[in-house]
Amino acid sequence: MAKIETIRHSLSHVMAHAVQELFPGVRFGIGPAIENGFYYDFGFPREALTPDALPKIEKKMKELIKKNISFKKRRLSKQEINKIFKKQPYKRELMKKLPKGKLTFYESGNFIDLCQGPHVKSTKEINPNAFKITKIAGAYWKGNEKNPMLTRIYGIAFKTKKELDNHVFKLKEAEKRDHRILGQKLKLFYSDEEVGAGLHIWYPNGAILIKIIQDYMYKELTSQGYQWLVSPHIGKLELWKKSGHWDFYRENMYSPMKVEKEQYILKPMNCPFHVKIYQSEIRSYKELPIKYAEFGTVYRYEKSGTLHGLTRVRGFTQDDAHVWCTQDQLAEEVIKLLKHSLKILRAFGFKEFDIYLSTRPIKYVGTKKGWEKATNALKYVLKKEGLKHYLDKGGGSFYGPKIDIKIKDSLGREWQCTTIQVDFNLPERFDMSYINKKGKKKRPYMIHRALLGSFERFIGVLLENWAGNLPLWLAPEQIWVIPVGSQHRKYAKEVAKKLLSDNFRCKLKDENETVSKKIRNGELKKIPYLLVVGDKEMKTKSVRPRYKGKDLGKIKLTGFIKKAKIEIDKKK
Amino acid sequence: MAKIETIRHSLSHVMAHAVQELFPGVRFGIGPAIENGFYYDFGFPREALTPDALPKIEKKMKELIKKNISFKKRRLSKQEINKIFKKQPYKRELMKKLPKGKLTFYESGNFIDLCQGPHVKSTKEINPNAFKITKIAGAYWKGNEKNPMLTRIYGIAFKTKKELDNHVFKLKEAEKRDHRILGQKLKLFYSDEEVGAGLHIWYPNGAILIKIIQDYMYKELTSQGYQWLVSPHIGKLELWKKSGHWDFYRENMYSPMKVEKEQYILKPMNCPFHVKIYQSEIRSYKELPIKYAEFGTVYRYEKSGTLHGLTRVRGFTQDDAHVWCTQDQLAEEVIKLLKHSLKILRAFGFKEFDIYLSTRPIKYVGTKKGWEKATNALKYVLKKEGLKHYLDKGGGSFYGPKIDIKIKDSLGREWQCTTIQVDFNLPERFDMSYINKKGKKKRPYMIHRALLGSFERFIGVLLENWAGNLPLWLAPEQIWVIPVGSQHRKYAKEVAKKLLSDNFRCKLKDENETVSKKIRNGELKKIPYLLVVGDKEMKTKSVRPRYKGKDLGKIKLTGFIKKAKIEIDKKK
Repeated sequence: MAKIETIRHSLSHVMAHAVQELFPGVRFGIGPAIENGFYYDFGFPREALTPDALPKIEKKMKELIKKNISFKKRRLSKQEINKIFKKQPYKRELMKKLPKGKLTFYESGNFIDLCQGPHVKSTKEINPNAFKITKIAGAYWKGNEKNPMLTRIYGIAFKTKKELDNHVFKLKEAEKRDHRILGQKLKLFYSDEEVGAGLHIWYPNGAILIKIIQDYMYKELTSQGYQWLVSPHIGKLELWKKSGHWDFYRENMYSPMKVEKEQYILKPMNCPFHVKIYQSEIRSYKELPIKYAEFGTVYRYEKSGTLHGLTRVRGFTQDDAHVWCTQDQLAEEVIKLLKHSLKILRAFGFKEFDIYLSTRPIKYVGTKKGWEKATNALKYVLKKEGLKHYLDKGGGSFYGPKIDIKIKDSLGREWQCTTIQVDFNLPERFDMSYINKKGKKKRPYMIHRALLGSFERFIGVLLENWAGNLPLWLAPEQIWVIPVGSQHRKYAKEVAKKLLSDNFRCKLKDENETVSKKIRNGELKKIPYLLVVGDKEMKTKSVRPRYKGKDLGKIKLTGFIKKAKIEIDKKK
Repeated sequence: MAKIETIRHSLSHVMAHAVQELFPGVRFGIGPAIENGFYYDFGFPREALTPDALPKIEKKMKELIKKNISFKKRRLSKQEINKIFKKQPYKRELMKKLPKGKLTFYESGNFIDLCQGPHVKSTKEINPNAFKITKIAGAYWKGNEKNPMLTRIYGIAFKTKKELDNHVFKLKEAEKRDHRILGQKLKLFYSDEEVGAGLHIWYPNGAILIKIIQDYMYKELTSQGYQWLVSPHIGKLELWKKSGHWDFYRENMYSPMKVEKEQYILKPMNCPFHVKIYQSEIRSYKELPIKYAEFGTVYRYEKSGTLHGLTRVRGFTQDDAHVWCTQDQLAEEVIKLLKHSLKILRAFGFKEFDIYLSTRPIKYVGTKKGWEKATNALKYVLKKEGLKHYLDKGGGSFYGPKIDIKIKDSLGREWQCTTIQVDFNLPERFDMSYINKKGKKKRPYMIHRALLGSFERFIGVLLENWAGNLPLWLAPEQIWVIPVGSQHRKYAKEVAKKLLSDNFRCKLKDENETVSKKIRNGELKKIPYLLVVGDKEMKTKSVRPRYKGKDLGKIKLTGFIKKAKIEIDKKK
């Protein structure tokens, strides 16, 4: 049976065929297979296509598939080409760029396309119940905004209906979990054309969420011997020249600001500042490893077209740290980092991870020997810890090999989080050193690492993973106390006061609204516990919690507090 | 008796007279009275003056004073002037700029100077024991770096020797308390030409100090109903145009950065972002007052010549907040702000405050009526709270009246901290509104306020006030545990562990160094408590604390902990 990519590619031809039948005079762009499906770009002769035409196209495709149309590879004469593509300017443009006399075409029924293939032998190989036309979008011809805008029709396709259904389910789930929508609905973060694309202002509940995560990380990292630094958001251009960022990373940096005779750069990374503090004293081997951490907000240029919610932004705060150690300490430090990272990611509810080891690329700094030693240390660590990993040969940064941890969310989607990178560049450029046991100057090993990556991105991933239903310890508002009637307000207030004194983030909801409306609102806001209190609860010093839409029944307030505390402590 | 300013001015002439006697051929610049003293600028004929000449000058001045030389106001003929100032190019340059025929001179002995006076009648009025020549510095003629560099000699002068001694004592104290020196000595913050002037990187202990203060402020502000926001450090130029900053505050802003077709500005203030969040919903009177707080790091351009340690910087983090309320709520909100501010400043150990009320300047926005109402509310509040204040008539910002609190430190020096400012500008420019009880759109009152001012500046003031000996709750390292011998290490470790578990910031000092060296180091680092533990302490589960150089004697560990906790809680 044909490969799924081949089936997807053939489906794009079938779609073009169907469109040709339904919309005579349509002009064809290109139509490749893509992840999970395919698309084709069309120039419609008169009006633009509207989404309600999609079922018609899908229906026509099914008809064509059932006809068992065969795909034939052909070489055409110049005369034939000119005839077929007379009214196809995009195809003619494509052909001009190709070497003459070597053009391959695929013919399926009365549709013919300039195409290298491969394709299915016949539409028999395509399961007519395992594909779906999903959406249309505008796309400039050749991706260039100076060219005409074509209509791109997307489809998804699999080998079996089950796979298709599963994918459709995931898409729907992903849509429900879209952190950009959840961020607005739960009032976590705000973005605005007037503030700037890729920059977010955090609402009060978002600011609390950041603080919860940062407080947790602060405690965790401090317990691991990290020391904290605070560095400015700008620094002189000279510093970024010395660090190499200006030469190797400029496309991600913002343009310099003039200050008197100097030029300043908005920081894309925190490293040079941390290096400066390392260098503010002569360091001895006794001090190593030195670990400096900072929740450093950095700014990196991204094309506006690539920006996406919190996962692709222009300004973000890293849980950044740098570790300097001796060669002997390298493996041990990386083990600690890996273990700690997995512990932390698990605390946020992630259970599956894909680990990647990336090795020396063609262009690199440092010595081959140094790379070998460091790469071997990373390999040794992964083996020793029994961590399965993928080898990304040549995929390291120019400055050193690295280990990346991608987390898999509840829909099986991968998200890049932890990165642990050896750096041969900065120690060299800043001539960093420590004095070893024998009193000799030595170059330390330097590790960059972020465990979560950035708080923005990580919160995006958390929201998608949990569909907004954050675990109790992370929820900005953990508990609402809802009195049934006005006669229960006093008791509700007592309950709220007790919960607040026990450090729960709790709100008393005593507005003049019906209980059911309050419950509905609480569920929309994804508040973990809604505690309803009426006569029975008041009499018995109890509460009646609702949890994710379920009434858990009456429970003593003290009992509820105990259970909630256990739920929070579970993460540790 | 003459005014002290007159005495100081006359002393500058006496100094010039003395220099003329000691260094024939010296050229005279200008010599005014200044705060606490006077100076005179000289052009020395051959070699530059060195500080060891100062006592000689002072001695000569005392001799001159004792001669009871009288100061005579004179008008000189052109011939006389030309003769006297033949070799005085600076004086001749000054005269050229003055209207002809109206020049006044003062003659004292054989020294004569172009001068408006007034002066003492005779040096009899000058107390020869109440002045002191203090230092020399380079100063460009007329402050212009294209002109020759002159030598400026400074003196201080008072009416009595007691006042002079008191001032000299304060100067010495201030020198010991210089936060720039303490910041390096205690390893709190670091500045570096390569990073940029007026920008600081905080060492680990500095970062802890910031965190201690921020954690305290977070708790305090949250308890007062503030909600927290997090906003980016850059925003589109359009936003700053709309807010008026680009027109009215541009000289303090950095140049724009180009991002695709847009221009972005490093934020000098957080306000526009907070306004955006206010405006992200329709607001009802029921929600007011709305209070948004942020520890927002802002960047403002300052001339490099005016930068000074942490108190005049280019980047700093404000304890910023904005309050929006109805007119009826204004007075109450300002009372809350004032009370809260004083409570907080007292927690940091400040006891004396000067309060200023600044009213409508000539250029202002908003209506006269609005200003009147707001100013009256501020006056009412100060009166109601029985807070003595100075009136700074016309000293308000263009956008609204304000109350400032300056704290007096232990040397009686004033430092601007709290500012509470009504703003008529932003609500107008952003067309801010709330819906009142009658369902009508109304403009809210807006208050900007920072209680500490900025963390950088406030830490500078704290260090100067406490001469680096921070109160226990603020000290980044609170306690060192020092074992007398190696046989006490185990016990010392236990003590340290207990203290850590009680949330003290504590270090075990078990390096191979003498106890006395550790104590000396601890005192240099201004660690509040050095706990020495030897045989006796080990046997009785005790410690022997040293506090500010004093041995407090043996005390049970539990007793010490109790006392230390009380010391920390005192601030509340």
